[in-house]
Amino acid sequence: MTHSDYLNNLGQQAKTASYTLASLTGAQKTALLQCVASKLTLAKHDIVAANQQDIAQAKANGLSDAMIDRLLLDEPRLLSVIADISNVIGLTDPIGSEIDSRLLDNGLRLSRRRVPLGVIGVIYEARPNVTVDIAVLALKTGNAVILRGGKETLASNKALCKVIRSALVEQGLPENCVQLIDNSDRALVSGLLKLDKYVDMIVPRGGQNLQRLCAEQATIPVILGGIGICHLYADKDANIDKSVDVIVNAKVQRPTVCNALDTALIHRSIATDILPKLFDRLTALGVSFYGCDKAKAIAATQGLTVETATPDSFSQEWLSLTLGIQVVDDIDAAVDHIRRYSSGHSEGILTDNIHATAYFINEVDSAAVYVNASTRFTDGGEFGLGAEVAVSTQKLHARGPMGLEALTTYKWIAVGDYTARD
Amino acid sequence: MTHSDYLNNLGQQAKTASYTLASLTGAQKTALLQCVASKLTLAKHDIVAANQQDIAQAKANGLSDAMIDRLLLDEPRLLSVIADISNVIGLTDPIGSEIDSRLLDNGLRLSRRRVPLGVIGVIYEARPNVTVDIAVLALKTGNAVILRGGKETLASNKALCKVIRSALVEQGLPENCVQLIDNSDRALVSGLLKLDKYVDMIVPRGGQNLQRLCAEQATIPVILGGIGICHLYADKDANIDKSVDVIVNAKVQRPTVCNALDTALIHRSIATDILPKLFDRLTALGVSFYGCDKAKAIAATQGLTVETATPDSFSQEWLSLTLGIQVVDDIDAAVDHIRRYSSGHSEGILTDNIHATAYFINEVDSAAVYVNASTRFTDGGEFGLGAEVAVSTQKLHARGPMGLEALTTYKWIAVGDYTARD
Repeated sequence: MTHSDYLNNLGQQAKTASYTLASLTGAQKTALLQCVASKLTLAKHDIVAANQQDIAQAKANGLSDAMIDRLLLDEPRLLSVIADISNVIGLTDPIGSEIDSRLLDNGLRLSRRRVPLGVIGVIYEARPNVTVDIAVLALKTGNAVILRGGKETLASNKALCKVIRSALVEQGLPENCVQLIDNSDRALVSGLLKLDKYVDMIVPRGGQNLQRLCAEQATIPVILGGIGICHLYADKDANIDKSVDVIVNAKVQRPTVCNALDTALIHRSIATDILPKLFDRLTALGVSFYGCDKAKAIAATQGLTVETATPDSFSQEWLSLTLGIQVVDDIDAAVDHIRRYSSGHSEGILTDNIHATAYFINEVDSAAVYVNASTRFTDGGEFGLGAEVAVSTQKLHARGPMGLEALTTYKWIAVGDYTARD
Repeated sequence: MTHSDYLNNLGQQAKTASYTLASLTGAQKTALLQCVASKLTLAKHDIVAANQQDIAQAKANGLSDAMIDRLLLDEPRLLSVIADISNVIGLTDPIGSEIDSRLLDNGLRLSRRRVPLGVIGVIYEARPNVTVDIAVLALKTGNAVILRGGKETLASNKALCKVIRSALVEQGLPENCVQLIDNSDRALVSGLLKLDKYVDMIVPRGGQNLQRLCAEQATIPVILGGIGICHLYADKDANIDKSVDVIVNAKVQRPTVCNALDTALIHRSIATDILPKLFDRLTALGVSFYGCDKAKAIAATQGLTVETATPDSFSQEWLSLTLGIQVVDDIDAAVDHIRRYSSGHSEGILTDNIHATAYFINEVDSAAVYVNASTRFTDGGEFGLGAEVAVSTQKLHARGPMGLEALTTYKWIAVGDYTARD
């Protein structure tokens, strides 16, 4: 079979399966997800064994320990993934709700009904838990899904999908509600991105290169996201000690994720007060710095050497214990810096000044804008969405943490009495 | 200047202007739009004269009368375009409203605030009124806009944009809130579609080829739409005479637009009752047909010759007094036909049967689904949106008629008290 035939077949099967999913009741979806959870539990030894194959291969290929840790799906991790299914079961199903219902002057009763998107394509890297997370969220919202995981976890993903598909069959549903592209040829990614006849949305969960590939090649709407070059601006009216706490939290509480802090912007009038404290606290926690000249000069008084910040360093999503520091003349300079370097994910102001607060909220155009809070809160769970499909950094359809509703659309329903237009 | 420099410059100027627009009050936007309306009225003779140049050129190029009519902007049409600005001024401004405001367990106050998208690129063909319509809707929602009209109306579009930009200047606002690509080289369209650094959304208003070009080349989210292959299904329990009225209305009330009917699907048990009446009524109104064998046989009994319907003919958006007819065995066959040929715009069922109604609404996945009503209602004005940016046939961001809200996004705002994540 050619790649094109293979993908068309996959797409057609997904679309057909999606019609069945779209008309399931909430009770049927709950029974399905409970069945998925219990079958995954029963199959836990097979799944862990399949993951061990992936791990052995990764070691043979000389992958780093950090990477191998990302691939690992041992029994405790698998049980945690299964436990999360119960959380999803408990979420309110958005499908079927009607909004903006009204009677038009011409007698038509018009409303918008929330319905599944149809078929969702998800392209992801490494972590095998995504296979279950995404399949479960898609099924909860009545969507079929085509999964393309990283080649490093192909055995794990095959084992997981096999179990999920067996649960679909047991519930009398088409197994093609969940399909895995079980071939790691990269050409299949490009092909999937052009399968607009069957696929309604693409969610890439991976780094900058994957995001860019999807933006450039897809003929299907893509939700870009997950890249966070995040800023906190400590204003002239910031509480110094409390600001240090928040900056430290945003940088070190979990440095490897997209909502971790990348650059601290410091108003010049507080620089000599706050920076020495920041350098002390963060250096003790293993953080290193890229700073502007003023920041470097202050660091030097503490005997600390700081790398010189450049446009390149300010354009980095660090994902590590590294922090950029820029001393700014005023709030406008902070806003300008953010507009220039931010990826539109999460930014915050630290201040006791209500005017600065309002100005910052208005002028900074990112998915999440914080006042006196850590950027680490940008997360579906923290925001009370109960789940997180991805964090969108684009402005259409969904922005910021995406919950179940982001996997739905609506259709307009108009009921008349053989009504014609004048 | 190279195309790339030209477009980057345009994009940068639009983005900068968008920051100013985003913080305007409603009163400022009203004053701006009133100024646009009065300046267009004052400049009406210049605008009509510019349009006459376009018309003369079109005639010299041998364009059809129908095309020339689309290009025409005479004084009555211009005054009607200007009058529509008052309607837009009267609409509720969605910017600044907050939704889902709540206090999280961790003490953060979280809400989503509706904000402008930023910069919108609109690519359109022929009709010069779109220049004003889109600029006004964009300004009302605080967005900057980059316009690329058809080369046939370049003189008209230049004259209109000049006036709109002079109104911006008079109101103390950046004239680059509205920019026109005043060069008809097609390479500029491809370039605009990749200006993702500055442009937040692309709206193509034109035919299938333009839509496809945008889907394939854009690295910016695109709202596809405006292509309607629309169906009405007359069920076995349809009221025959009333159904004939609705089908006639959907086909002939305005055949050149996207929500006009393209194919009537007729349950076989009513075919011999309804088709003779339909053929009589529609033939008298100048409609010609592509029919399945059963439809052709019934037409033959009336001495009427009908073209043979094919997959190609069922895939046509007619935009003319032509109608496809397919007799189907049951509602499932009607749904299958729609899934195969529909562009996802507007479909309806004609029936007195509540079960058929519910089934059709669930199974047909189009932007607008009608029960006992003409497809001609799919329109921002008819749906009470007060305006129409476009009719989306895709599922993300906006579906069906797009009002002001489709030109907005939201940002999450979280206010804490120097709150860190545990």
